[in-house]
Amino acid sequence: MMHALRGSAGARSSIWTSSYSDGYSARLGLPSTHFYQTVKSSTEQRRFPYKRTTVAVAQRGGPVRALSPAMVELETASLQISQTPEWKALEDHVTEIEKTHLRDLLRDGHRSDTLFHEFNKIIADFSRQRVTSRTLELLTNLAERAKLREKIDAMFAGEHINTTEDRAVLHVALRAPRTKKIVADGTDVVPDVWQVLDKIKDFSDKVRSGEWLGATGKPLTDVVAIGIGGSFLGPLFVHTALRTDQTASEQARGRNLRFLANVDPVDVARALNGLKQETTLVVVVSKTFTTAETMLNARTVRTWLTTELGPKAVAKHMVAVSTNLKLVKEFGIDPNNAFAFWDWVGGRYSVCSAVGMLPLSLQYGFDITEKFLEGAHDVDEHFRTAPFEDNIPVLLGMMGVWNTTFLGYSSLAILPYTQALSKLAPHIQQVSMESNGKGVALDGSKLSFEAGEIDFGEPGTNGQHSFYQLIHQGRVVPCEFIGIVKSQQSVYLKGEVVSNHDELMCNFFAQADALATGKTPIELRAQNVPDSLIPHKTFTGNRPSISILLPELNAFTVGQILALYENRIAVQGFIWGINSFDQWGVELGKVLASKVRAEMHTCRTKDRNVSPTDGFNHSTTKLLNRYLEGKARLLYPEPEDVFPCDLIESDTCRPPSSYV
Amino acid sequence: MMHALRGSAGARSSIWTSSYSDGYSARLGLPSTHFYQTVKSSTEQRRFPYKRTTVAVAQRGGPVRALSPAMVELETASLQISQTPEWKALEDHVTEIEKTHLRDLLRDGHRSDTLFHEFNKIIADFSRQRVTSRTLELLTNLAERAKLREKIDAMFAGEHINTTEDRAVLHVALRAPRTKKIVADGTDVVPDVWQVLDKIKDFSDKVRSGEWLGATGKPLTDVVAIGIGGSFLGPLFVHTALRTDQTASEQARGRNLRFLANVDPVDVARALNGLKQETTLVVVVSKTFTTAETMLNARTVRTWLTTELGPKAVAKHMVAVSTNLKLVKEFGIDPNNAFAFWDWVGGRYSVCSAVGMLPLSLQYGFDITEKFLEGAHDVDEHFRTAPFEDNIPVLLGMMGVWNTTFLGYSSLAILPYTQALSKLAPHIQQVSMESNGKGVALDGSKLSFEAGEIDFGEPGTNGQHSFYQLIHQGRVVPCEFIGIVKSQQSVYLKGEVVSNHDELMCNFFAQADALATGKTPIELRAQNVPDSLIPHKTFTGNRPSISILLPELNAFTVGQILALYENRIAVQGFIWGINSFDQWGVELGKVLASKVRAEMHTCRTKDRNVSPTDGFNHSTTKLLNRYLEGKARLLYPEPEDVFPCDLIESDTCRPPSSYV
Repeated sequence: MMHALRGSAGARSSIWTSSYSDGYSARLGLPSTHFYQTVKSSTEQRRFPYKRTTVAVAQRGGPVRALSPAMVELETASLQISQTPEWKALEDHVTEIEKTHLRDLLRDGHRSDTLFHEFNKIIADFSRQRVTSRTLELLTNLAERAKLREKIDAMFAGEHINTTEDRAVLHVALRAPRTKKIVADGTDVVPDVWQVLDKIKDFSDKVRSGEWLGATGKPLTDVVAIGIGGSFLGPLFVHTALRTDQTASEQARGRNLRFLANVDPVDVARALNGLKQETTLVVVVSKTFTTAETMLNARTVRTWLTTELGPKAVAKHMVAVSTNLKLVKEFGIDPNNAFAFWDWVGGRYSVCSAVGMLPLSLQYGFDITEKFLEGAHDVDEHFRTAPFEDNIPVLLGMMGVWNTTFLGYSSLAILPYTQALSKLAPHIQQVSMESNGKGVALDGSKLSFEAGEIDFGEPGTNGQHSFYQLIHQGRVVPCEFIGIVKSQQSVYLKGEVVSNHDELMCNFFAQADALATGKTPIELRAQNVPDSLIPHKTFTGNRPSISILLPELNAFTVGQILALYENRIAVQGFIWGINSFDQWGVELGKVLASKVRAEMHTCRTKDRNVSPTDGFNHSTTKLLNRYLEGKARLLYPEPEDVFPCDLIESDTCRPPSSYV
Repeated sequence: MMHALRGSAGARSSIWTSSYSDGYSARLGLPSTHFYQTVKSSTEQRRFPYKRTTVAVAQRGGPVRALSPAMVELETASLQISQTPEWKALEDHVTEIEKTHLRDLLRDGHRSDTLFHEFNKIIADFSRQRVTSRTLELLTNLAERAKLREKIDAMFAGEHINTTEDRAVLHVALRAPRTKKIVADGTDVVPDVWQVLDKIKDFSDKVRSGEWLGATGKPLTDVVAIGIGGSFLGPLFVHTALRTDQTASEQARGRNLRFLANVDPVDVARALNGLKQETTLVVVVSKTFTTAETMLNARTVRTWLTTELGPKAVAKHMVAVSTNLKLVKEFGIDPNNAFAFWDWVGGRYSVCSAVGMLPLSLQYGFDITEKFLEGAHDVDEHFRTAPFEDNIPVLLGMMGVWNTTFLGYSSLAILPYTQALSKLAPHIQQVSMESNGKGVALDGSKLSFEAGEIDFGEPGTNGQHSFYQLIHQGRVVPCEFIGIVKSQQSVYLKGEVVSNHDELMCNFFAQADALATGKTPIELRAQNVPDSLIPHKTFTGNRPSISILLPELNAFTVGQILALYENRIAVQGFIWGINSFDQWGVELGKVLASKVRAEMHTCRTKDRNVSPTDGFNHSTTKLLNRYLEGKARLLYPEPEDVFPCDLIESDTCRPPSSYV
């Protein structure tokens, strides 16, 4: 059997000739599920063992990777998407769209109907996007050219679509039901997922019921979850959404959940304020158990615990979400109290793993959080199976590409009309900007267009009294309005025109139309607005938005929202031809921080301040010196064995006279 | 005396011929401080009384306004700033700058020194901006052409620089010391300011000391401040910054301060959760006492209070920050317990008025909040008096114009390296985007360039694990790093390499250099990174940032930060030639919301749902129907006289079967 591949001419990636070597495999006794593959360039020939479903691919100078033949095709499809006729057709189409105004487009009821989509009680109305049926057709063509369907399938099939890290991307498996089979690297991962979920249920039941007690025999009613990035924003988003849900809040009665993310000691003080050690359980979330911020915070909180309760309390008061059992044990946590996840779960996609499920189950009970998984799975199945024209995450993603890349809007405002979703925008900001904030295509070639957008947002109506001025009359910012039919907490006061929730929702409906239709000088003149004010009171309109309406906000629909956004972000990356699942851009800052840390340590441990001279530029040296001088009398002492209970220590020394 | 003015040809505003009429003034007995002015167009002649320092100006079709001769000149200077040679020189200069890279610019120590600025312990390092000495020279030329100095002077002099609302802009007077004199409309406003401040001190002292008691004789330890937009984000920013400050938190011991902004009943539930009526004081903040969200929330919380304590409790448990004493009284609040502010204080600039000072003084004591005012005044004086080349708010503003308009960066990331400033970015997002998110110049002509930027941000290091990926490798986002020398809460653990705060600050230093210098393929190759990964691990660098270092974070420096940003935002607007002090863009949404509200009321009060048919487009009708149907059985009942204590009412009716 022979299978040869060659990279497309001119592309940066050069896929070498490769061939299966069944004879060689047999000779060396490789099992029949595997084979050796020979990879050959003009100067080199090497053999690698792989599973039968994969094929080895090498890039010039790079490691050989194991990919399915389908994946090889997908990578090739992503090359230079901006050079394809489908891309150029959309670029040309922009001129057509620029002749339209949403005020006119919205007069076409048929168009509105075709842009109104529903899935399982979720409504997504795209009628206020600057699109026509032709736009959708062209976007679909582009998606097909980018092999969107195949890429979605490859993701669900556990292919290593995170090519630069050679990993599968299977956060969808985290919410698959027990009956499902999802294979990664030859193994069905669903049983592993459920083994951990069962362990979470068991542990959270024990803590909640009071079977698991703290060192002094008291129930652990307060949980501090230490983690940063994906180990923080996702769980915080879900927690904020559920805390005012009536069912969930009932189950959380008497319990507290707090998060500690920032390495700033101010955040430590905030997170621990008012808590008692003897009723506090600490969950340390770090896959590798080496994340700098998380581990320093974990050691700080461990000191807070042990100062009060003694070193043995760690076993009862601290648990871990991690895969590094060795470091978990060295830290003092019983490895039996470590909850695993897997390398096919990216941090920003990890809220459905133990990262989110453990703290949320401790707070709300496993049955509530299980509904959250069900909601996410519900949308995953829709995403995996629905044809593109009815597929809400796909449509969201296509609109995102259209707005960002073709219409040139750099940002996206996420505007949920409920305070319970106040942490949605910060979470999606992370998922989207870390996933799609990339400058190169899968093959490493520089993008000839801007990919990822800047995501931000606040809940309505708060945002209306803040940045909406710009959105209405300044630069164009595509908006996503999210409304809820039934409020978690409703009030209707005697004598009011509408209920409080109806009042809120009036704004949800009004804002989308205000953006789309605007207000013309003619309308203003008809209202006798003075000429001099007309330009200031004119609204250009023609500003795109999407309206999403959910029946209510509960664990299930919060899961749906999460999966809508996660999958839409993947769609955008798939079309742009980038790797949405790596994050090399965070590395350089870490390296440079280590350098500064070493310098600070040197300066702080000498009798006098040492000027950092080597390896920093003039500006950094100058500012760093000013920083160090500002706490001139801070020389790290050998601290006392006993940690001061109020957490306040050497840093509070008086500043030098120049700062008094 | 004769004084004639005519608008520049071709501009939209036509300044009519005007003449002083001293004889007419004398004849009608106008005092010598005033005079009548005759304003004449080709078809019309009218006389208006004005103060001697003003001149009447009319725009075609618009009202006659009272401006000083200087203001007339300033408005004229703002016309078509983008048509001036100074603007064109900067446009041309972009080509020069595009040939540079920050990696190289940072090698020039002399350049770095000239871009390092200090004022009263604040350090601002501009060396990582994409500027040379030539850029600064050209920006200064532009600022002069835009009459920046004159505009700053006009603001401090109480001129009506908010031209579309014909108002002075004097939030700087809110923090002026008693000894200062600031005149608006012929009156020194400083005594008025201090009268209210003294009243705040008196009232907050009484509440804090327990002299002022609730209806059942208990001290009021908990404050709920109801307000939205500027009446919320500014006070929240300051409160968040102070709550971990050791001095401030000591004075807040045993007290709580919460904010209620969103009209969402979920936010009501969150804000009141766990509070007791008998110990709660409610501050209602609305200048006109008509803000829809604030007043509905005020009525809701009033019901919560009176249900428990009876109607008479309002007098003891509710106070107002408002100027509408009639509505305050009608609401049931004693007008003696209303704290005023003035029409020369814009909502987003109101945190130094009673809007912020009352709740903050109740929480922290007046002496702490007074220091906040002193800090803001400190920077105001620097802003008012320092030459541009040493003026930090002016330099910040000039860089903002350079980045946004000339280099074309649409956004700004505000990245404080302390959790205590976690609400700085949301507040500045409001101040900046509402002020400068405009599409027309002062004279109403359409801007030929993009003005206001999109502001967003999260505290470091949290943001590093979120959106920094995009900032490093995706589209360029100018960044502002804010660091603190002495932490509010410091920890140093035995055996650690650095203290927790030093660890945090390592990142502050590292990120700015990572953005500026990047990492080249050559450096990566030297570290044996495989060729295939090199494009993914390359950092282009050349991404601009500003580093601001403050000696510590306390009430005084929080005031400094506020004034830095407020004044920098004014500088940008002054140079762009827009009105940064109106907000017409928020009006249309309010009008449309009223229309939806009326429709909802009709539908909810009939026996059956009525389809909204008139006046809405097809999309809105469809979605609105789906919303109304979703709560089909919600027909507003006549509520019981007694408000249910748990706030939960009619909206929680079971959904129709289609939603079960």
